[in-house]
Amino acid sequence: MENLLSKINKPIDLRKLPENQLPQLAKELRDFIIDIVSKKEGHLGASLGVVELTIALHYVFNTPEDLLVWDVGHQAYGHKILTERRDIFHTNRELNGISGFPKRSESVYDTFGVGHSSTSISAALGMALASQLKGELEKQHIAVIGDASIASGMAFEGLNHAGVTDANLLVILNDNAIGIDPSIGALKDYLTAVKEGKNPKQNNIIKSLNFDYSGPIDGHDLPKLILELERLKSVKGPKFLHVITTKGKGLQLAEEDQVKYHAPGKFDAETGKIHPNDESHLPPKFQDVFGHTLVELAKQNEKIIGITPAMPTGSSMTYMMEAFPKRAIDVGIAEQHAVTLSAGMATQGMIVFCNIYSTFLQRAYDQVIHDVALQNLPVIFCLDRAGLVGEDGATHHGVFDIAYLNCIPNIIIAAPKDEMELRNIMFTASEGLNHPIAVRYPRGRVENVNWEQPFEKMEIGKIVTLQKGSKVAILSTGTIGNNVTKALKEVETSNLFSHYHFPFIKPLDLDSLKLIINSHEHIITIEDGVIKGGFGEQISAIIATNNFNKSIINLGIPDSFIEHGTVFELQQLCKIDVKSIIQLLNTF
Amino acid sequence: MENLLSKINKPIDLRKLPENQLPQLAKELRDFIIDIVSKKEGHLGASLGVVELTIALHYVFNTPEDLLVWDVGHQAYGHKILTERRDIFHTNRELNGISGFPKRSESVYDTFGVGHSSTSISAALGMALASQLKGELEKQHIAVIGDASIASGMAFEGLNHAGVTDANLLVILNDNAIGIDPSIGALKDYLTAVKEGKNPKQNNIIKSLNFDYSGPIDGHDLPKLILELERLKSVKGPKFLHVITTKGKGLQLAEEDQVKYHAPGKFDAETGKIHPNDESHLPPKFQDVFGHTLVELAKQNEKIIGITPAMPTGSSMTYMMEAFPKRAIDVGIAEQHAVTLSAGMATQGMIVFCNIYSTFLQRAYDQVIHDVALQNLPVIFCLDRAGLVGEDGATHHGVFDIAYLNCIPNIIIAAPKDEMELRNIMFTASEGLNHPIAVRYPRGRVENVNWEQPFEKMEIGKIVTLQKGSKVAILSTGTIGNNVTKALKEVETSNLFSHYHFPFIKPLDLDSLKLIINSHEHIITIEDGVIKGGFGEQISAIIATNNFNKSIINLGIPDSFIEHGTVFELQQLCKIDVKSIIQLLNTF
Repeated sequence: MENLLSKINKPIDLRKLPENQLPQLAKELRDFIIDIVSKKEGHLGASLGVVELTIALHYVFNTPEDLLVWDVGHQAYGHKILTERRDIFHTNRELNGISGFPKRSESVYDTFGVGHSSTSISAALGMALASQLKGELEKQHIAVIGDASIASGMAFEGLNHAGVTDANLLVILNDNAIGIDPSIGALKDYLTAVKEGKNPKQNNIIKSLNFDYSGPIDGHDLPKLILELERLKSVKGPKFLHVITTKGKGLQLAEEDQVKYHAPGKFDAETGKIHPNDESHLPPKFQDVFGHTLVELAKQNEKIIGITPAMPTGSSMTYMMEAFPKRAIDVGIAEQHAVTLSAGMATQGMIVFCNIYSTFLQRAYDQVIHDVALQNLPVIFCLDRAGLVGEDGATHHGVFDIAYLNCIPNIIIAAPKDEMELRNIMFTASEGLNHPIAVRYPRGRVENVNWEQPFEKMEIGKIVTLQKGSKVAILSTGTIGNNVTKALKEVETSNLFSHYHFPFIKPLDLDSLKLIINSHEHIITIEDGVIKGGFGEQISAIIATNNFNKSIINLGIPDSFIEHGTVFELQQLCKIDVKSIIQLLNTF
Repeated sequence: MENLLSKINKPIDLRKLPENQLPQLAKELRDFIIDIVSKKEGHLGASLGVVELTIALHYVFNTPEDLLVWDVGHQAYGHKILTERRDIFHTNRELNGISGFPKRSESVYDTFGVGHSSTSISAALGMALASQLKGELEKQHIAVIGDASIASGMAFEGLNHAGVTDANLLVILNDNAIGIDPSIGALKDYLTAVKEGKNPKQNNIIKSLNFDYSGPIDGHDLPKLILELERLKSVKGPKFLHVITTKGKGLQLAEEDQVKYHAPGKFDAETGKIHPNDESHLPPKFQDVFGHTLVELAKQNEKIIGITPAMPTGSSMTYMMEAFPKRAIDVGIAEQHAVTLSAGMATQGMIVFCNIYSTFLQRAYDQVIHDVALQNLPVIFCLDRAGLVGEDGATHHGVFDIAYLNCIPNIIIAAPKDEMELRNIMFTASEGLNHPIAVRYPRGRVENVNWEQPFEKMEIGKIVTLQKGSKVAILSTGTIGNNVTKALKEVETSNLFSHYHFPFIKPLDLDSLKLIINSHEHIITIEDGVIKGGFGEQISAIIATNNFNKSIINLGIPDSFIEHGTVFELQQLCKIDVKSIIQLLNTF
């Protein structure tokens, strides 16, 4: 059979196909995604689930004139391939390659950059209201959102507003009953009941919010999808189409283990089998040190609770959920709720470990200030994926946390340099600190296989001397300090350099810090966060306001958004990799 | 008739009253609130609306063992008076007096500190889950939330989670169809239909979320309230009681103009008439300069849009709503949605002025980073109530914005020193900047009555020289610089001091800044934001990293939460009032 996909460079080509050829195209598109992702890694299951929906949308609507917004964007691979990026799709998530998420600067078909969930309804509604004001009444505006994302508060805000407008907005619920982990919440139960026809009271939340609701329909049935989308084109006002899809559709193993195949790594394109990768000799990931340590602590103290907003697998909260199902809670994509729920529990004496990716804590910034820090409640925030996260890119780097937390009174900010410090900080926090604490640690693996050592209590604020030298003091915080340690092993004049590790960014032991500054000629700071408002700038300010006449260099993330690439490549860009540090040290 | 209220110091006293005396108590409580608020100012309407509900709750439930959480807290005056604070209620919102909001450190009856909306469900659910784990199965957990607050995404997240738990949680919807301004959104329309019996399909959003729904009932009918609350005590799992109240109940004028009587200032306790206060000779408020200027600009450019999350009156977006109703949108208490809606509109070429109180932008921090700044969309954020806000206190001071915005790439941060600069920055932004911009300005009045001057375009980043001196450079940003100007008039050695105003905190004109630093011996910075990560610390870091051997002092908000009081009193506490500045300058 002739290959259809190879001739489709953009949606206008797609629209020339007769409808009866679209199932063939769907098969080719699915095979293309599987083929590339099996070799190059990436997000698999979500994109396989919306192959038919993607084709139908670009077939029925006049993209890019009509505006299509994908929520989160994990599912947009098919969209990218059909919109001028088929031949560069193999560069997905690579440095200077295409982004793993829709991105405005990459394509006119990517109408809104995404990565964090639940923004699509607000963005598409904004576009629809703008079109209305501009008199562009034929323009269509479509948001495609998953059932995990629509349960987030922000999506509700968008629906609630859209329902009192007459905007030409179509919200498509891509209901596959799963986000990265299975979806949770009352809305999900409700949607499941709708799907199963158990809706005896004609009850419909979406209709109650003034949407023209249709569905649920089979999202893998192209003729049905096309028919319904064609019909909806001429329906005025806010519309809602409930589409049922299967995550991982078309690859049996991916359908069977949807969590694993969300982003499976390399696998066999034919069988779907994930390449056997014996990792037993490797040290664990930081998230696993967190997860196992939490269980270890929880065994000793029944007041310990774990909370995750929709990231049980990604944060390894799964271990706690298995060991103590009542004491580990997945609240869904609801970071704001997760933080204030934690605060509420803390008022009753619970010791709450609230695990949130650094970049997603941005979603709950007000709750950290207003509900936790202002009340000085001892919630323990464990911020996974702090620092540069690599291939997920600009939307996901956890580089702002030091700056946005450091300005908040009462909070302790910790950045362990390794697995043992992470364990010991968790232990110390679980023993009671009378303050909230945020513990930031990176994506990836620790360096030590034998990490299960006994706990030791840490002294809050204490600075750790790793090396004493004569001329230059290097002040590091977090795991990026290990790059300094490695660099110092390669530098001939290593004896010139002291290396101090700051497990605590806040509070600072000012007396010790001043002694350190006074006993060196030059200071270098390094962190894997933004320099502006970060750890190093704070040290610089201390030098200036105390009239120390010392030179200082702040290393970290510059004042620009950092794109995707491997963590190593991005460290090079920011000059915080080992080699760049060596070059700098050699100038002294 | 004997006075009942004077004998009630705490709820246990209240519970000794026979039920038939409660209406009399309600009258006395209402009169007490009116009497004090008429003289001392404060939030009136919300508390008058829940007098009966407040009495019923403390009568039926065993507070403080049972845990009662008030959302926002505008309505908690009756609660405060009945819980050991009757005799100090006259100190409401005063320095060292009681807070205008529930506050944990103030009373054991204030189970959760509030001020920002929509936190109560999450907090009370956290308490309920904690009680369950502790085996305290008789403990009751009640969240009282208004119809404006429940429409916020965070509240939905709480409901969505609660609905899949068996927590002993009672959510009481205090439905008065108004927040500070009338409530908006599809949920509000839906609730109104429920109230009016127009609910033909047995449709019930709340039931769909697995809550045991009852109501709507008359929230001013004490026997009905008590009966229903008693019944609900023994209902297991998440419950929802829909209560209809009238904001301002019992004071006719307050019932008739609910917006004005939300916080009416001083008024006649008998008639309710607001004291005639001829303000025509006074200069306008900053918010009015914003509001009128927006209309002025919008007349010239049809692409200009105004967006407010539930603060049309407080931000003076009302003028735009009157002049261009289609181009001014109140989205309700939905800051996250407001920001991403603005971003969506900006992608279509709209010039969006998104007006949010500084403290509430914390709610949309991720959206500012992820949806606006990362995409470099030229949304114009107008941050009202920046700096110290006075009597609303710790929950409402807009003191973190400089720090939390300055670490974000691409964004311009402006802080005009007066009304003309505010107008000119708005004008300049409306002409197109190719970057997002945040313009921060304070609560209160400008200093100039004749503020309607022609627009002048401003140069982004340009530093303004207000005074040249020989020895010390004072660098100020925003209106707090006017304190410096006043101080300099009082200082004998004024010729020692240069005064530079920074209308832009970001970007900085580094070349000019370096010249300024180099040509003075000492530097003083001043801002009405937190020092940590703020404007001044940034200057200090520049001094240190550039090896300028200059002394620097950073004035601003210290690293602790600032309580309530007048703005002047709080400036004194932070040593940024005129007199403190004079004292400092006299040391040079």
